[in-house]
Amino acid sequence: MVPATTGRVAAMTTNVAAFAAPAPSAPLERTTVSRRAVGAYDVLIEIKYAGICHSDIHQARDGWGEGIYPMVPGHEIAGIVTEVGSQVTRHKVGDRVGVGCFVDSCRECEYCRQGLEQYCTQGMTGTYNARDKEGEPTYGGYSTHIVVDENYTLRIPEGIPLDEAAPLLCAGITLYSPLAHWKAGPGKNVAIVGLGGLGHMGVKIAHALGAEVTVLSQSLRKQEDGLKLGADHFYATSAPATFEKLANTFDLVISTVSAPLDFDAYLSLLKTDGALVNVGAPEEPVSLNLFSVIGGRKTLAGSMIGGIRETQEMLDFCAEHGLGAEIELIRADQINEAYERVLAGDVRYRFVIDTSTI
Amino acid sequence: MVPATTGRVAAMTTNVAAFAAPAPSAPLERTTVSRRAVGAYDVLIEIKYAGICHSDIHQARDGWGEGIYPMVPGHEIAGIVTEVGSQVTRHKVGDRVGVGCFVDSCRECEYCRQGLEQYCTQGMTGTYNARDKEGEPTYGGYSTHIVVDENYTLRIPEGIPLDEAAPLLCAGITLYSPLAHWKAGPGKNVAIVGLGGLGHMGVKIAHALGAEVTVLSQSLRKQEDGLKLGADHFYATSAPATFEKLANTFDLVISTVSAPLDFDAYLSLLKTDGALVNVGAPEEPVSLNLFSVIGGRKTLAGSMIGGIRETQEMLDFCAEHGLGAEIELIRADQINEAYERVLAGDVRYRFVIDTSTI
Repeated sequence: MVPATTGRVAAMTTNVAAFAAPAPSAPLERTTVSRRAVGAYDVLIEIKYAGICHSDIHQARDGWGEGIYPMVPGHEIAGIVTEVGSQVTRHKVGDRVGVGCFVDSCRECEYCRQGLEQYCTQGMTGTYNARDKEGEPTYGGYSTHIVVDENYTLRIPEGIPLDEAAPLLCAGITLYSPLAHWKAGPGKNVAIVGLGGLGHMGVKIAHALGAEVTVLSQSLRKQEDGLKLGADHFYATSAPATFEKLANTFDLVISTVSAPLDFDAYLSLLKTDGALVNVGAPEEPVSLNLFSVIGGRKTLAGSMIGGIRETQEMLDFCAEHGLGAEIELIRADQINEAYERVLAGDVRYRFVIDTSTI
Repeated sequence: MVPATTGRVAAMTTNVAAFAAPAPSAPLERTTVSRRAVGAYDVLIEIKYAGICHSDIHQARDGWGEGIYPMVPGHEIAGIVTEVGSQVTRHKVGDRVGVGCFVDSCRECEYCRQGLEQYCTQGMTGTYNARDKEGEPTYGGYSTHIVVDENYTLRIPEGIPLDEAAPLLCAGITLYSPLAHWKAGPGKNVAIVGLGGLGHMGVKIAHALGAEVTVLSQSLRKQEDGLKLGADHFYATSAPATFEKLANTFDLVISTVSAPLDFDAYLSLLKTDGALVNVGAPEEPVSLNLFSVIGGRKTLAGSMIGGIRETQEMLDFCAEHGLGAEIELIRADQINEAYERVLAGDVRYRFVIDTSTI
């Protein structure tokens, strides 16, 4: 039995400033939330920047089921370590660090042991809108400070400005992981469907990996951007000729969109043994003709962010290749407006909150 | 220019006895069809046995589009070489040989060069209901003789009786190929959905490869058979508890059925990084929730027979492990009745025609 007086949550929490949705679909507003005391294996991070991910909006507005309110979104976090616990060895005060989509996992299951914590059999602990092992709600990056276990804290190499690094913690790893897993690289023909926050990182990373990169976007509106980001080709999917011309072309197609695509048409773009990997997905079921995968031994797959080890690998890769996100820096009081602009597809390519304005 | 008098089709064809569907949906009846002369690289095979594949019925009844009539089905062929062309080096008179689903392909595309002739970019030449390079219709194994290029003719090792070998040329390779490609073996948990002509070979081969094998069948009606064939476990998919109990269990699930399954439910049976591979498929589109593949980086894939090199590897593997199909030998005049029994699921597990009765 642990004496009640040592309960860290009760005894030693700190209130910090944050922006939170007080209830489903309510605008986000300034508030304070409590952060746990810095435990032996924890680091206290002064958050400098937090990216706005499409899924923040889904969750803040309760698009994915039961939300925990007040909700402080934000799982693309970049900041500086300002305090470390007594047993911390991986980080020190002053380090540039990041936090992604999860802050804990069971650490014991076969997936945690393989560094695939995102697929933890007990379920990873989300950076926000989740409950930690003590049952306390987690609050995300739209805040001035966060306390995170050192093992779930990433090192951000010097080569990447912190504001451009923040979106790598979700958008970057979400694309890097399938590109690495399905072996994008020299000699491989890769298509990225959708040129938004996820897609633009896909183009940059696939290009840096040495693949031939094609953007498949609804229109040619962002063509100039796409080519500048590293794409070799750019096609409008609204033109039916695109699907005829590109039939049997790609080793790998990564869809970043949440619109219900014609998956049979996209599968027809793959070579034999090619894979169509979804990192975005519509909430409703889609229709699929199985002959689209049988002829050509094709794969329809999915992928969800990445593990801690791979996220560090991605950050190191991005630093080595000079990659960061294309961002639009905003003040905290612009968050609600930014949400509307994300929903309207009006951002090139990621909003990042300057958390000093919270 | 080749002088017209050497046109082998016009000058030297031979009529042979066969069973054919004279028109869509008409019963099969005894007839004669012409086989081309034995060319320099051809072998003449005296067919001993021909398996009845479900797809024979589909095609004979025109379930897959435009059929060529009269149609002689049969792409599970086992027989003896009785004549070889002047340049043949791979087979000799008296050899036990087999022919599967295709008798030619372009031989030049990237897939043919890789030994994946079934995915030939020009389209493989089907053993029946297709047209060869001269534009002549191909006729399948429900016949006494066939002329096939030596490179598309397989060697049947001594260890397998010819009648039990015939179904390996389609049912055997259809299961062997995905089991090998997705690495079924020791330490792997494999489920076979459906215990019919395809499924029963899947159980035998997966067991021989060293995997732990589970049969997922609609009911427990064939449980005893399944366990005898090599399955370690047998579950009825009509019992909802099956899906709860087996959640996150399998590395590989191979579906051999053409009924529209609840694919989200079957995907939930996979471990992270697991694959659900379809070798059977409903003709209508199916419904799929993409979150079923995103959580756990799962794969929904398809596979279609196998290439020539892999088919030979499969036959050698089956001989080494003493595997053949479980068959019910019939006379040619029982074909139409057998078709009805296949459609009713009333066969354990493959009808094979004794072609001496044609």
